[in-house]
Amino acid sequence: MLSGGPSYTRGVSRGPLLTPDVVVVGAGPVGLAIAWRCAQRGLRVVVRDPAPGSGASHVAAGMLAPVAEAYFGERELTGLLTESAARWPEFAAELEAATGVDIGYRTEGTLMVGLTADDLAEARRLWAYQQELGLPVTPLRPSQLREREPALAPRVRGGALAATDHQVDPRRLVPALRLAAERAGAVLVPEPVRNLAGVLAGVTVVAAGCGAAALTGLPVRPVKGQVLRLRAPDGGPPGFRHVIRGYADGEQVYLVPRQHGEVVVGATVEERSDVDVSAGAVLRLLRAAIELLPELAEYDLVETVAGLRPGTPDNAPILGPLPDRPNVLAATGHHRHGIVLTPVTADLITDLATGGATDDPLLAPFRPDRFHTGTGGRGVAGSEQSRKDEAWS
Amino acid sequence: MLSGGPSYTRGVSRGPLLTPDVVVVGAGPVGLAIAWRCAQRGLRVVVRDPAPGSGASHVAAGMLAPVAEAYFGERELTGLLTESAARWPEFAAELEAATGVDIGYRTEGTLMVGLTADDLAEARRLWAYQQELGLPVTPLRPSQLREREPALAPRVRGGALAATDHQVDPRRLVPALRLAAERAGAVLVPEPVRNLAGVLAGVTVVAAGCGAAALTGLPVRPVKGQVLRLRAPDGGPPGFRHVIRGYADGEQVYLVPRQHGEVVVGATVEERSDVDVSAGAVLRLLRAAIELLPELAEYDLVETVAGLRPGTPDNAPILGPLPDRPNVLAATGHHRHGIVLTPVTADLITDLATGGATDDPLLAPFRPDRFHTGTGGRGVAGSEQSRKDEAWS
Repeated sequence: MLSGGPSYTRGVSRGPLLTPDVVVVGAGPVGLAIAWRCAQRGLRVVVRDPAPGSGASHVAAGMLAPVAEAYFGERELTGLLTESAARWPEFAAELEAATGVDIGYRTEGTLMVGLTADDLAEARRLWAYQQELGLPVTPLRPSQLREREPALAPRVRGGALAATDHQVDPRRLVPALRLAAERAGAVLVPEPVRNLAGVLAGVTVVAAGCGAAALTGLPVRPVKGQVLRLRAPDGGPPGFRHVIRGYADGEQVYLVPRQHGEVVVGATVEERSDVDVSAGAVLRLLRAAIELLPELAEYDLVETVAGLRPGTPDNAPILGPLPDRPNVLAATGHHRHGIVLTPVTADLITDLATGGATDDPLLAPFRPDRFHTGTGGRGVAGSEQSRKDEAWS
Repeated sequence: MLSGGPSYTRGVSRGPLLTPDVVVVGAGPVGLAIAWRCAQRGLRVVVRDPAPGSGASHVAAGMLAPVAEAYFGERELTGLLTESAARWPEFAAELEAATGVDIGYRTEGTLMVGLTADDLAEARRLWAYQQELGLPVTPLRPSQLREREPALAPRVRGGALAATDHQVDPRRLVPALRLAAERAGAVLVPEPVRNLAGVLAGVTVVAAGCGAAALTGLPVRPVKGQVLRLRAPDGGPPGFRHVIRGYADGEQVYLVPRQHGEVVVGATVEERSDVDVSAGAVLRLLRAAIELLPELAEYDLVETVAGLRPGTPDNAPILGPLPDRPNVLAATGHHRHGIVLTPVTADLITDLATGGATDDPLLAPFRPDRFHTGTGGRGVAGSEQSRKDEAWS
């Protein structure tokens, strides 16, 4: 490690600059955590982003849910989610110790519920699969459910507990990671990167979410999600403690309670690239939420917002060197899983950036070369997408 | 009329001021229209309001609906609504001519509909009453309904046309009235009036909405209304032309299409004095709206807002001199009817302010003395209300 930290300062006249060891494109949670880890190892790190934390993380609920998010046909992704979730307790503790920022990390666990008999039947198929994988899913009788969360609607037919599925508040996480990265010596430059050719660095990390498509040609596409934020009346905490994920008359919804009264209700999954909030989506989310937890009707609706997740053809992230540009590392395509995957992504990419562990078996299923696409700059993404992505990059 | 207009100017050093003939407290539509009319008659007029147009009118949909709003037991109010609606075409034309502002006055009429058989039965009771009063209500068969508005849900069981119920856009109306009043010579002073004792004027008009309670002791109370604003996708106009008022599974809702793509969806009627937007209210409004007009699901939800109507014990406005203070004229308590009642209120109050027509039979049922309350300052309204009202006055 270089003693005394990096040679960067944030002053205006800072004299001749050394070429950074690492330039991270994108100051979302993934990019900032990579910057933090790289700076901790003594690398000179620059993060480029005109609007840190303004991408998918601004909309995300922050569920750390490898169990509830273990879907059919995504076994390798489930492994990575589980590994990263296991790193979260230490990651959260280290981050809070380094910054003094409360990032809203909560460990009450997640209740998965079904409103109607049909909903419960659908949920049970998934729970059975999750149990087959050896994941900790504990079925609960309705009376046990209501013991844990008396506010659940009497109609709720049944549920299960995923005790190890936790949560964090992404809107607290981002400023904490930024502070940690800067304290470790990383420098945030609030400017966009429009193409990688102009970036001078030992290693360039593309953590630009949907913006990665235009920068690298990787098959990352926007997957729209609409999310609501409610607030418990009279300034109190919400009347429930667990994250609740449920099916309600065929509609999937999650309800994430925060200590200070906020409840996040999400989320749609739409193959669209606008960020408009639609009346129909708000109706479906509110209806499902209030059917599962009737007291939410009395909560204030304080925010409606839409964001774009960086989706990939196999729903898994893209991690590692571009096939034809070994000094460019992708850290994108995290789709619904950016928050939970932040610790493991930061560790893996930092290992790669420092020349270590390039054959980590954790990484193998997620390398960019699995798509066999051109990575010369503008590949899969068309020009329309490229324009939209400029705000991200 | 005083030639050359009033002696007021808006400059900082304007020399010794004459006592105004009229001070209007409150720059909502009612207050501004009174100021306009008084200034047109050559009176020196000052309007006091720290935030013009920020009260109930900012939330209001702007329906001019004496027919659809003719409810059981409100015969005298219905008469006043009908009279004021009849003055609207000329009022709108004069205002647009005086200012060049398009105030969104539209005359396509109002469709009243019922979604289910129960909804239709309830609606028909009211339509029968409205027809008894001689109001122009034309029942329509479902096929006729859909000819007029093909976007209506196929489930809608029946409806009726109130061809003379029109609409205006209150957010365009207020700046137009302000401009007209100022062009006629009225002066807007952006300062609150906390009590009437400090107001020096020949006549003081209290057009302060809910704020009238604290200023006059009149029994005006806040009646909360929550309203949504949607926007047609792709920048086009909404896919329907009439104002639609309906019952949908027992829920009353109105849908007001604007030329530039906006659709106003309202409104709750709640005996509350907060302006929080609740999840339950948004759910009920969206559900009813989308049940009646399914394409609204694809519209953007661009605003959720709550406001406070100035309600009175008999739901009718309070117009005329305070019993013990003949130089103070009330023009408040317009409840759900502030926009439609603006022209007639302005005419009646201006007549009173200029010493004419104090025995107008139109005015008789709405005079302040019908409540027999003390008007010495703080009467019916308690201290909590008074505090809230400071923002209005």
